[in-house]
Amino acid sequence: MALPLDVLEKSVNRRLSLLLKDGRTMEGRLSGFDEYMNLVLEDVEETKDDTKRRVGTIILRGNNVVSISLL
Amino acid sequence: MALPLDVLEKSVNRRLSLLLKDGRTMEGRLSGFDEYMNLVLEDVEETKDDTKRRVGTIILRGNNVVSISLL
Amino acid sequence: MALPLDVLEKSVNRRLSLLLKDGRTMEGRLSGFDEYMNLVLEDVEETKDDTKRRVGTIILRGNNVVSISLL
Amino acid sequence: MALPLDVLEKSVNRRLSLLLKDGRTMEGRLSGFDEYMNLVLEDVEETKDDTKRRVGTIILRGNNVVSISLL
Amino acid sequence: MALPLDVLEKSVNRRLSLLLKDGRTMEGRLSGFDEYMNLVLEDVEETKDDTKRRVGTIILRGNNVVSISLL
Amino acid sequence: MALPLDVLEKSVNRRLSLLLKDGRTMEGRLSGFDEYMNLVLEDVEETKDDTKRRVGTIILRGNNVVSISLL
Amino acid sequence: MALPLDVLEKSVNRRLSLLLKDGRTMEGRLSGFDEYMNLVLEDVEETKDDTKRRVGTIILRGNNVVSISLL
Repeated sequence: MALPLDVLEKSVNRRLSLLLKDGRTMEGRLSGFDEYMNLVLEDVEETKDDTKRRVGTIILRGNNVVSISLL
Repeated sequence: MALPLDVLEKSVNRRLSLLLKDGRTMEGRLSGFDEYMNLVLEDVEETKDDTKRRVGTIILRGNNVVSISLL
Repeated sequence: MALPLDVLEKSVNRRLSLLLKDGRTMEGRLSGFDEYMNLVLEDVEETKDDTKRRVGTIILRGNNVVSISLL
Repeated sequence: MALPLDVLEKSVNRRLSLLLKDGRTMEGRLSGFDEYMNLVLEDVEETKDDTKRRVGTIILRGNNVVSISLL
Repeated sequence: MALPLDVLEKSVNRRLSLLLKDGRTMEGRLSGFDEYMNLVLEDVEETKDDTKRRVGTIILRGNNVVSISLL
Repeated sequence: MALPLDVLEKSVNRRLSLLLKDGRTMEGRLSGFDEYMNLVLEDVEETKDDTKRRVGTIILRGNNVVSISLL
Repeated sequence: MALPLDVLEKSVNRRLSLLLKDGRTMEGRLSGFDEYMNLVLEDVEETKDDTKRRVGTIILRGNNVVSISLL
């Protein structure tokens, strides 16, 4: 069985797309995470209401994350 | 008695439909889960406001899940 | 005194009606539950905005449940 | 000092009125409760937007309860 | 330093005004509380949208309380 | 490194401005706090939608506090 | 792997931009944090609806933080 945190661990250094609770999406390379699914992403592009902006390195609180897609 | 996590365990590799708190639904094959009902789904089709899109492999935070239907 | 989980235990295999936080109701036979009031229901009929649909077996996260009525 | 759970314990078999987070009120006889203030009520009358309906025995999740009035 | 629970303890039998998350206010005499700031108030007057009503003895869940003013 | 609770401790008896989740601000002298960032403020002036009122001594639940500014 | 709290630790004394749940952003120098991602920022500039204001030293509750960008 694929445990969620194991899947995250295998995704380190790969690109992910996150959906946040406020509808924002973040696409970036996973640099690290912890047991609460707080995430560190690098080379991040944020999309909100069809507007994109680059935000470099970002720490995301796990409790704002709805879903994590492996790219 | 059918414990919720036991029912999930028996559903590994089967297709599920999830309803999320924001009204989105996700249909995919259950690849794994943990005690918080964080889920790993594969071959996922997401539906939002009658728009469908394929999202491959996805990790879902349990606290955004309203219900899980066995297909 | 009737403890909530004891009342649930006596309701296994009986039909229940659930009210969820998003206003949806679910009527089905209780197949199981856990200490967080996550529930497994079978033969479920979901009602939302006067639209009914059958959803078979469903796992419901306890933190989305407002109330559970014994039928 | 009157501890909240002690006040609830003395209210078993008495009628209460509950206010829920969604504005709904429930009036019924307290049959039991647990440490999370999950409650079991019997002979319940629910009021929502001036519409009343009888719902028999009900289990209420404590985290949806705003206040409990002793009648 | 005045710890919040110590201030509450000194306020037992005194009148308080509570602001709840839904904008409602409750004014009453503090009869007791617990470590979660669940409160028991007596001789309560509730105000909502400029409408007042008396509600006698009430148990309030701490997680719905925004602030407690000493009168 | 300045730990958040250490910064609060050094702020006892100083004036603070709090922003609450509902947009309200409270300005007052910090009288005490606990590990959950529940706060006791004295000589409080509350501002909501440009309306100010004095509220004396107040206990604030930490989970309604967005930010605390040192004045 | 870059753990979120380790990334924060390396960011002490550097400037960060925070996005809060209510859409507000805060830009300032990280002075400290704790395990809940409560943060202490100095020389803060807050932006809300295109209005900026300086707020000096601020303590932010971690559960209101959506994301932290390293500048």
